[in-house]
Amino acid sequence: MPTEKDPPPADTSSEDDLRIAEDTAHEELSPEQDLATELEAQKDRTLRLQAEMQNIQQRAAREINDERRYGSLPLMRDLLPVGDNMDRAIEAAEKDSDVESLLEGFKLVRQQLANVLTTHKCEPIEAEGQPFDPEQHEAILQQPSDEIPAGTVIMVTQTGCRLHQRVVRAPHVIVSSGPAES
Amino acid sequence: MPTEKDPPPADTSSEDDLRIAEDTAHEELSPEQDLATELEAQKDRTLRLQAEMQNIQQRAAREINDERRYGSLPLMRDLLPVGDNMDRAIEAAEKDSDVESLLEGFKLVRQQLANVLTTHKCEPIEAEGQPFDPEQHEAILQQPSDEIPAGTVIMVTQTGCRLHQRVVRAPHVIVSSGPAES
Repeated sequence: MPTEKDPPPADTSSEDDLRIAEDTAHEELSPEQDLATELEAQKDRTLRLQAEMQNIQQRAAREINDERRYGSLPLMRDLLPVGDNMDRAIEAAEKDSDVESLLEGFKLVRQQLANVLTTHKCEPIEAEGQPFDPEQHEAILQQPSDEIPAGTVIMVTQTGCRLHQRVVRAPHVIVSSGPAES
Repeated sequence: MPTEKDPPPADTSSEDDLRIAEDTAHEELSPEQDLATELEAQKDRTLRLQAEMQNIQQRAAREINDERRYGSLPLMRDLLPVGDNMDRAIEAAEKDSDVESLLEGFKLVRQQLANVLTTHKCEPIEAEGQPFDPEQHEAILQQPSDEIPAGTVIMVTQTGCRLHQRVVRAPHVIVSSGPAES
């Protein structure tokens, strides 16, 4: 129970009197009694709010922690069959060295990995032929070009992708510096 | 905004006034005035707590949402080089069909994928030779066995792994039903 500031030194005998009055004539509470009652209720509400807030904070921290720990689980789950298929392809190739079917198997697995990434919203970042965007692209080289205007991406040397609004990996790009000066 | 019972006719902008009054003539406040002051302060505190609580809730919801959206990003980032290496191996194999080096390349990529999963805390669930555990294993078959006691896993047909405390994929297992009755 909150006891912060005690009420001012009200005359105690009068308090008793008042309480008796309260019993007998509830409607006739003094403004002071009314205030005291309301203050108690308000203090009680504050306490409950504080407790509730603590609960909310703890629960949120737990949920955030859980999401952080287990955020990669769905992607991980989808990767396991990719690993299985690689194992199978390797096993088959070790028994029977047929380049064609080995290559075919690996291409399928490669496609499977690409599909898993797509399913999990890893979207390719377009770069070739686009204006160079330092927020999305990583320039590894500038090259003169007669055809491609300065500041435009000539070529992608490593693909990139984004997840929703964030860049997972920026594509590595070669950017045109415009026509070579001669 | 809670407005339940309004306080007795106290002037609402009165908190400051009262505070000034408190400073200048603290001793001379009536018990009623004291209570009114305290009640105002308490209501104010409640309001601030409610606002703070709303902030906390909104921030937590945002953080949880972010963790959910981007939880797979680090794993995704580490997978991209696996895909790159698969592409390179396929490209090389298409130019020069040497089974040995193709197989070698693929084994390396397989190992790379396994390493990525390990880095991201995907831990294998041990099963072979362990007592069958329905929480962790998925029984796909029961088989009599003279050597392996009933209820023990004879063989794993598909690997499984867990992430921290959660099962990502349960290993598929064949469980012994004990010696065959004859």
